[in-house]
Amino acid sequence: MSSLRSLDENLISHIPPFRKLERVDIREILDAATPKRFSAGQAIFEEHEPAERFFLLLDGHVRVIRTTAAGDQVIARHIVSGELMGIAPAIGRTTYPASAVAIDDCLVLFWPTNLWQTFVAKYDGFATETYKTVGERISEANNHILELATQQVEQRVARALLRLAIQSHRDTEEGMEIDFPLTRQNISEMTGTTLYTVSRLLSAWEKQGIVTSGRKKVVVTDLGKLKTLADLDPMGDS
Amino acid sequence: MSSLRSLDENLISHIPPFRKLERVDIREILDAATPKRFSAGQAIFEEHEPAERFFLLLDGHVRVIRTTAAGDQVIARHIVSGELMGIAPAIGRTTYPASAVAIDDCLVLFWPTNLWQTFVAKYDGFATETYKTVGERISEANNHILELATQQVEQRVARALLRLAIQSHRDTEEGMEIDFPLTRQNISEMTGTTLYTVSRLLSAWEKQGIVTSGRKKVVVTDLGKLKTLADLDPMGDS
Repeated sequence: MSSLRSLDENLISHIPPFRKLERVDIREILDAATPKRFSAGQAIFEEHEPAERFFLLLDGHVRVIRTTAAGDQVIARHIVSGELMGIAPAIGRTTYPASAVAIDDCLVLFWPTNLWQTFVAKYDGFATETYKTVGERISEANNHILELATQQVEQRVARALLRLAIQSHRDTEEGMEIDFPLTRQNISEMTGTTLYTVSRLLSAWEKQGIVTSGRKKVVVTDLGKLKTLADLDPMGDS
Repeated sequence: MSSLRSLDENLISHIPPFRKLERVDIREILDAATPKRFSAGQAIFEEHEPAERFFLLLDGHVRVIRTTAAGDQVIARHIVSGELMGIAPAIGRTTYPASAVAIDDCLVLFWPTNLWQTFVAKYDGFATETYKTVGERISEANNHILELATQQVEQRVARALLRLAIQSHRDTEEGMEIDFPLTRQNISEMTGTTLYTVSRLLSAWEKQGIVTSGRKKVVVTDLGKLKTLADLDPMGDS
């Protein structure tokens, strides 16, 4: 933990669940944390395993994956830096409901799950902010259901790319580059679509100047057109 | 509220969020509640409206519905007696994320939302149990996503019927009758399927002796075969 002591309180003081806390509380929380690095492809936690720790992603990108018994994978969401993950106790669970896999090199802090109740009881605003996070994830899941149930595949893929581009991008000369590795297979697992369909759509959109894509890279080159394809905000609250 | 004072504490003392409470607490909670009846088809609360109240369904069945801007409806879930609903504060929201519509005659209790924090702070076990409820709803939503993304339509419809039959049925000579009005349109809105496909499947299953169905009625006549169609438990935790 010596490397952590050199980390400044500013590292987490801006993150919503910790934003209302005094410096002394933040120091206490950091002292109870263990930092850990994961490299691309490593599992941070696994679906169905006992949720012995909860995590804060400080740097990097994480893919949340669920797998059916038949072996089909669905990407439930992406987590970007500043988000809590593996917060099973916030939803009354003792096992992780999904797996979390590092997409690129990640730095996380983790705490033993038995500290969760302490954090909730002791730190002002921690509970409220984390339940807000839980609520946002329910909304996301419900929007995903609406999309899968009512939208055509073209719209679903457009919305998935749009959401990722807004959530996590770097601006380049080409346009908004989604700033972590993203393959066509990943996109198919996010949208319940075949790899063939994703490839067909991306090729068509590339010809129309809406996106460009490489092996693990997607750049949105015309955000306006992508929004039109996605028919943004059909639910009024997404 | 005079009608409520005659209601016994036993009415809610067995329901998980209230199960650990003393009689005196339950009396206090009932005294703060307002009872209300809704008839079939009435909205109990509406999507996007300010969440001024939270509810406990004491009797009846409720359908939770989300509507897209294009007017497509998706049935997110069904609520049976003993469940809390409209618990926006538990997920950090100030508006209802969906509409709740009475399927049959319903009796609910409601409380002003500003009492939520009081209940959480004051009543032992209330917070833990409600966060468990929230967690179950996230799991449900995520399972629904997996189904929509990976399963064939036949399996999705079979799973939807199986889930309803297990959640809420009466045993009749014919079999397990889903004990609230359920149309083919409802089933299509639960599964992201066309009405035509639902009708085709139900007709085929009726010939195979798996279900019988009337205008607003579905009876599961061979649970084992329905389970086989649904390929039960492919996620290992549903």
